[in-house]
Amino acid sequence: MCAIQEIDCRIEAWIAQIARKVDMMLNDVAVETKKHDLDLVTNIDKEVQADFTKFIEENYPEHQIMGEEKSNSEVDMYRGYAWAIDPIDGTTNLVKQGKDYCLIVCLFYDGEPLLAYTYEFYQQKLYKAVQGQGVTINGVPLHVDKYHHLNDALISIDPKRARSELLKALISKSHGFRFIGAGGIGALRTITGDFGASIDMGANLWDMSAQLLYAKELRLIVTDIQGNAIDLNHVKGAIIAHPDIHEDIINIIKTYQ
Amino acid sequence: MCAIQEIDCRIEAWIAQIARKVDMMLNDVAVETKKHDLDLVTNIDKEVQADFTKFIEENYPEHQIMGEEKSNSEVDMYRGYAWAIDPIDGTTNLVKQGKDYCLIVCLFYDGEPLLAYTYEFYQQKLYKAVQGQGVTINGVPLHVDKYHHLNDALISIDPKRARSELLKALISKSHGFRFIGAGGIGALRTITGDFGASIDMGANLWDMSAQLLYAKELRLIVTDIQGNAIDLNHVKGAIIAHPDIHEDIINIIKTYQ
Repeated sequence: MCAIQEIDCRIEAWIAQIARKVDMMLNDVAVETKKHDLDLVTNIDKEVQADFTKFIEENYPEHQIMGEEKSNSEVDMYRGYAWAIDPIDGTTNLVKQGKDYCLIVCLFYDGEPLLAYTYEFYQQKLYKAVQGQGVTINGVPLHVDKYHHLNDALISIDPKRARSELLKALISKSHGFRFIGAGGIGALRTITGDFGASIDMGANLWDMSAQLLYAKELRLIVTDIQGNAIDLNHVKGAIIAHPDIHEDIINIIKTYQ
Repeated sequence: MCAIQEIDCRIEAWIAQIARKVDMMLNDVAVETKKHDLDLVTNIDKEVQADFTKFIEENYPEHQIMGEEKSNSEVDMYRGYAWAIDPIDGTTNLVKQGKDYCLIVCLFYDGEPLLAYTYEFYQQKLYKAVQGQGVTINGVPLHVDKYHHLNDALISIDPKRARSELLKALISKSHGFRFIGAGGIGALRTITGDFGASIDMGANLWDMSAQLLYAKELRLIVTDIQGNAIDLNHVKGAIIAHPDIHEDIINIIKTYQ
């Protein structure tokens, strides 16, 4: 019997191990470009992906994996156990800043999220959700004070992907705008109540997978950019928001994007 | 003789003391609005300002002080010893996020910066410059790897204050955009080499005073938004940038703002 508790325990140990390995690699980061000059990948991204794949293949060979640094054409997230992994979310931040980057891992069963992890390397903080058991930060239960009005809340969106009119409307109707440059960390700041919403117009599943379980456990809302439920096999953009302001944001996006 | 070393020593001790006091006050933050709903001030801002004023009046009664939370009509930064202080830069971040806010203090003599401090409360990091002695972070000397090309560098600017065309141009010509929401921290990330430039279209002296000494010590460039030298008595906007990209950014601002 492959109990969720056992998988959780092993994955936490794997994260602790990979965090130490990444720490060792930080003095010698090798950067390459992918599709274009601004699309960076490092030896760390590749090593974390490879290490995770090896770990899953050895321990759970029947599990599928969808990841940023691999081909995913055969993966069906609605069939049995399936993992989504972004080995390094915020690679540009790792390369340019040495901070504000994270590992994102989430396990689904028949499309239901069971376990979610985000490890913020620089802060050494592990955000974790277990289905039905809430969210913890380094083991401490997280409770979120929710925003009820958009004009009280900070909002995160990548201005590169937002039309000028949308950005202007979001800024003028919210309390303010922030942009960290890692969608996974924007989501963390939303689940802690720092931000009221984090909008990632170009998110793939691996960028936003963990948000699905965090949101479920904390009664926040995750949808696509149009406000519809996420299709795990075809994610293109996502928003995580506090419930009372989600509809306002979707309406602003529909009007201005 | 009021040696700079002695002032430095006393100010460092004051910062350590006020950091402990702020830490005690975090459980009971009282928020008010100033000019409008988005312009926040807290009991912490006021306490830090009052504590600093008391400290200077007791120890250096002949020194002038220019600060965010006081009247400055009598202050002339080009006459004798004069301090600039922003008790909390990033008050909105303090209120909404509990992180990414800082204290900024700088001492000038006849308009020359002698001592500069930025204390990042959440990270417990003290950035300090002493004229002619470089910049340290918690006592460790800082060396900055400079950007030579704008398209390699991350840039920070408040999109609320930038015209859409300017924001688009900066984003398309740089490596990327970030916005933390505290000008003082944007500047810190520029002096460490995380960012290539931090632009604060609405900066007052207290927001950017410390940058003047950091830039001098590290051979970075600080000017107003038009690329001219800063007039300490009439600051309206500032940019701190790595030398090779400063002119490019000024040209983009002149073209698009």
